[in-house]
Amino acid sequence: MTDHPTLDNKTAVTRAAIHELLANRWSRRAFSDEPVSTDTVLSLMESARWTASSNNEQPWRFIVATRDDPDAHGQMVSCINAGNQRWATRAWVLMVGIARDNFDVEGQPNNRFSEYDTGQAVQSLVTQATALGLNVRQMGGILPDRVREIYSVPEGYTIMAGLAIGYPGDPDELVEALRDRERLPRSRRPLSALFFSGQFGQPHPLAESDDQP
Amino acid sequence: MTDHPTLDNKTAVTRAAIHELLANRWSRRAFSDEPVSTDTVLSLMESARWTASSNNEQPWRFIVATRDDPDAHGQMVSCINAGNQRWATRAWVLMVGIARDNFDVEGQPNNRFSEYDTGQAVQSLVTQATALGLNVRQMGGILPDRVREIYSVPEGYTIMAGLAIGYPGDPDELVEALRDRERLPRSRRPLSALFFSGQFGQPHPLAESDDQP
Repeated sequence: MTDHPTLDNKTAVTRAAIHELLANRWSRRAFSDEPVSTDTVLSLMESARWTASSNNEQPWRFIVATRDDPDAHGQMVSCINAGNQRWATRAWVLMVGIARDNFDVEGQPNNRFSEYDTGQAVQSLVTQATALGLNVRQMGGILPDRVREIYSVPEGYTIMAGLAIGYPGDPDELVEALRDRERLPRSRRPLSALFFSGQFGQPHPLAESDDQP
Repeated sequence: MTDHPTLDNKTAVTRAAIHELLANRWSRRAFSDEPVSTDTVLSLMESARWTASSNNEQPWRFIVATRDDPDAHGQMVSCINAGNQRWATRAWVLMVGIARDNFDVEGQPNNRFSEYDTGQAVQSLVTQATALGLNVRQMGGILPDRVREIYSVPEGYTIMAGLAIGYPGDPDELVEALRDRERLPRSRRPLSALFFSGQFGQPHPLAESDDQP
């Protein structure tokens, strides 16, 4: 793995330390052309696979395309909206995450947890990717109807997000309109807007003091 | 932090190595009475907070109760179903994860990603917990109507999962009916059932060979 460009304003600003795999993760648009090995892709798959889920249902499914097979990669690029194609086309690995709507065994709806658990599996994959020096940027901006048609995704499965995965690239090689956005500082809601105690909306005591951006 | 009991058959069996924070995570029912410090809880909060989300909406919300405040903890225990109360009551930290249904700014539905992104935030928290030696077991078996009533959760928010968080305990101290379940090997669907290429349901070449349980 070669050395990858970094930006110095992207580490999470926190009131208590968090693990470097979480603190240093951010969703770059800039990807390099460095190939991602098959063993690395397999590691990403395994990381998602071993995530916890409600009743161990494992409702997540993924369609995977890499630049090792340019036709397959191009086909998946065609399922990404135009705005995201400007940067995602360069990602060595593309995936579409899909949630199974019903439980496998009895066919009962799993609507409480199918999407939630699929999100958890993706986040495991993102952590594993970060551990391997990869960058992941997820995309809501895909074309679900086209995904369903091209890949014959049956009813009973909900098409969730696209995933662009690859080694980080040089932000200066992005199209001009994206260069500045790539360098913006990251922001989050304050803890007091997210963590409550006693009543919904009432900040937890730990979340109360000196909120930062 | 004291030494915690381990079971030797719980590490994920994978065809490519995954990070120890992912390989060694599993959802124990056995918790110890060791307190979780406020700084540690703050670290869990920060890890969830810095997760990626669609449009950076951060739809996740959490109600938090710890055994530092036995009344608050007991109130949250009363929102857990009887089966899970047998083990979850001992967890030092309890949380309920909640998803905001609509985007904050325009009020448009965020139904594609509100639950998915909340799952991602929880998985970040689980990774941070693992890094700090904590165990997390999530619970679908909570009482959402009771959560909504006790904590005055408004319409427009969906109550997702309960989280039991604490230091790992001794499986032999679980009630008898749970002791053996705690020692069962973990299992997952084969990669070939999860990762596809070209067509939905067609195993990706990397996922094809020698599937293991």
